[in-house]
Formats: sequence, C-alpha cells, structure tokens
Amino acid sequence: MSISILSISFKSINFTVSSFRLFDIYNYMPKIKNRKIISRTNLFRVDQLDINFDTGQDRQYEVICGTGNGAVMVIPILDSQIIFIREYAAAIDDYSLTLPKGKIDDGETVMQAANRELQEEIGYKSGNLEFLYLLDLAPGYINHKTNIVLATSLTPSKLEGDEPEDLDIVKCKTSDVAEFLSGEKNIDSRVLSSLYILNNFLKKNG
Amino acid sequence: MSISILSISFKSINFTVSSFRLFDIYNYMPKIKNRKIISRTNLFRVDQLDINFDTGQDRQYEVICGTGNGAVMVIPILDSQIIFIREYAAAIDDYSLTLPKGKIDDGETVMQAANRELQEEIGYKSGNLEFLYLLDLAPGYINHKTNIVLATSLTPSKLEGDEPEDLDIVKCKTSDVAEFLSGEKNIDSRVLSSLYILNNFLKKNG
Repeated sequence: MSISILSISFKSINFTVSSFRLFDIYNYMPKIKNRKIISRTNLFRVDQLDINFDTGQDRQYEVICGTGNGAVMVIPILDSQIIFIREYAAAIDDYSLTLPKGKIDDGETVMQAANRELQEEIGYKSGNLEFLYLLDLAPGYINHKTNIVLATSLTPSKLEGDEPEDLDIVKCKTSDVAEFLSGEKNIDSRVLSSLYILNNFLKKNG
Repeated sequence: MSISILSISFKSINFTVSSFRLFDIYNYMPKIKNRKIISRTNLFRVDQLDINFDTGQDRQYEVICGTGNGAVMVIPILDSQIIFIREYAAAIDDYSLTLPKGKIDDGETVMQAANRELQEEIGYKSGNLEFLYLLDLAPGYINHKTNIVLATSLTPSKLEGDEPEDLDIVKCKTSDVAEFLSGEKNIDSRVLSSLYILNNFLKKNG
C-alpha cells in the first residue's frame, strides 16, 4: 500500500478515467489465510474466509458459493420484440418478471443450455445465439455467474422442461421496454443488467 | 389454471405488450405448504420451501434469505462524472468494480445509509439524494434487495468506515461509461442494473 497515494489520470482515445492506486491493484492481492465450509445444502455452500490485507488488517467474510456450472440468461428477440417471462419466484413468494434462464447442466455448453432453456420456457429455438457477457451477481458475497446470451432467428420448437406450471410469456417491442418495465414489479435484476449490456451491444453493432 | 389459454393483448398510450395468463397471475398464488430453516450462519439463512402449484404439482425450493435490513447502492455524480470504486470482493477473491454500497444499519433510513456509505467510501456527502429503484437481486433463489440511490450536490466529507484498506476511486464521465466498462472485469451486476435505471431516469427527467 506504499504507493497508494499516487494519483493517475490517463486519456485513451475514447474516454477519460481518473483512478487512485491503479498500480497497487494489479500487483497486490489480499491473502486468504484460512477458508472453511460452514454450511452446505443441496444448492448452496457458505464458506468462511479469513483475509489478511496489506494494511495489516484482518477481516472475516462469509461468501455463498454456487455448487453447479453457473447459469444462462437468454434475451430472445423475434420481430423486434423481446420475449420475457413471468415466473413464480420462491425467494419472494411472488411472481417475478424475468427472461428465459436456468442452470447449465453437466456436460452442456453455454449455448446448448441457452437453446434448451428457450425451447423449454418459451417454445422457440434459436438459429443465432450470441454470447454477450458473463455477469457477476454480487461478487462481494456470492460467486454466482450468469452468461448473458442474445438469441435471434427464432423458430417454434418445444421441449418439456421441469416447470411446475406454464410460464406467462410477455412480448414487448425493444423500443418500448423501458416504459413497459416501469409498470412491472419484482423484476429480476439480471434482466436490467442484460438490457444495459444489450443496449450497449446494439449501439456498437447496429 | 383454467383460463391459462386466454390470450390478451392491449395497447396503452405508450407501448404494446402481449401476454398470456395475465388474469391468472393476479388472482392466483402457489401455496407454501411447508417452510423450514435448513442452515443459518452469521450473515445468511437458507430456507427449504415445499410449494404446491395449481397444476397439482409440488416442488421443493431452497432460498437464501437476508438477515438484515437490505442494502443501498449509490450512484454519485460530480461534474458530470460517476464515481465508481474498486474493492476487494471476497467471493471471487479478486478486485471488483462497484459503486459505493453497503448494508442499511439498524435504525437507519435508506437515505441515511446512502449518505454514510458515500462519506465512508469516497469521502463525499450529498445534498441531493434521490431514490431511483428497489432492486431484486435474483428473486428465484435469493431475497436480497438493494435500494438504488442517485447522489448529486456532492461536497467533501469523510467518515471512518470499516474498510480494511483504502478503496480505489475511479471517476468516469457519464458519456464515457459504456466504453470504460467494456475494459473492466468483475463488475458487480448491480452496477449494470443501476446504470440501466439511471439512463432511463435521465431520459425521462433530463
């Protein structure tokens, strides 16, 4: 931390960022002195970490660890409409607005999982899947990662999923999405992240 | 589920949405038949839920429950620049790009927590805090909620926080944020959700 006072600002071709401690970040990492599993259920594991920082300070953290292969969330676009779903969300005991999504099964690629979830949840398969982003849910305390995939060239194709009831399918023009969402409750935050990523992708790639 | 075949489409003043099962959603809820705590640590609780759906199907879920008052994430804007932070994120054992954030303490309002975190993490207080959105992290399996707050009218003011090391403060012009983020790794997904919300807010409110 000896050079932490150093102030750096640089200008690239496109943007200006000013940052402190830029060098530190790339040369230094806190040390995990001890890691132990303190809870394990079917789906989750909680680890307790003892971390030592360069400042001499020690901290104890609890973090939630995924026990699978990560998840996929798909943005399906058909006729300039995004296809959302409303699905029962157990953690809030209410319906939530989300996008086709699910866990990646063992032996499955991200794209295979994306096309499977599309067919199970909205009854389409995609002839054009594009990986957009690997999302870190809340890296301070949970290591879950969600692959964001854009799906176009959709054609009807149904696979039986493990959903306990039919999902409510909601289509909305891409240009009207912000307005539509302002009237929705219980939106999965990953939907909003995905739309931010999508907007930037579309700006860059037309 | 008897009217689940019903197809509805309506046109409001501003947007068109088509949806199936719209009536069902508002009149029907799956029933929690049994709920039990299967794990409890200092920070997390995992509940197991047995849910009965109208289709006659039963499902068992595990959900992560927060044990506090929720969290706040603040978007500080000063001189047309957003102030981000880079902070050690224990769940991924790496540095993460995020925004000033933290738990809401007992007895604290959302706005008090927002202004405290600002002073602890970036050394500013805000004379103009605006609540933007209540974010549902991943309502299918975690009930954590994060209040997104916009902070302007910033003036220097430092409070001692409980951070184990100084945070790396990164400022970026609002117009350059998308470009800046494309070169960043380990971005907290709530930053992306917040920026989506912010963009929509600024479009509406100038």
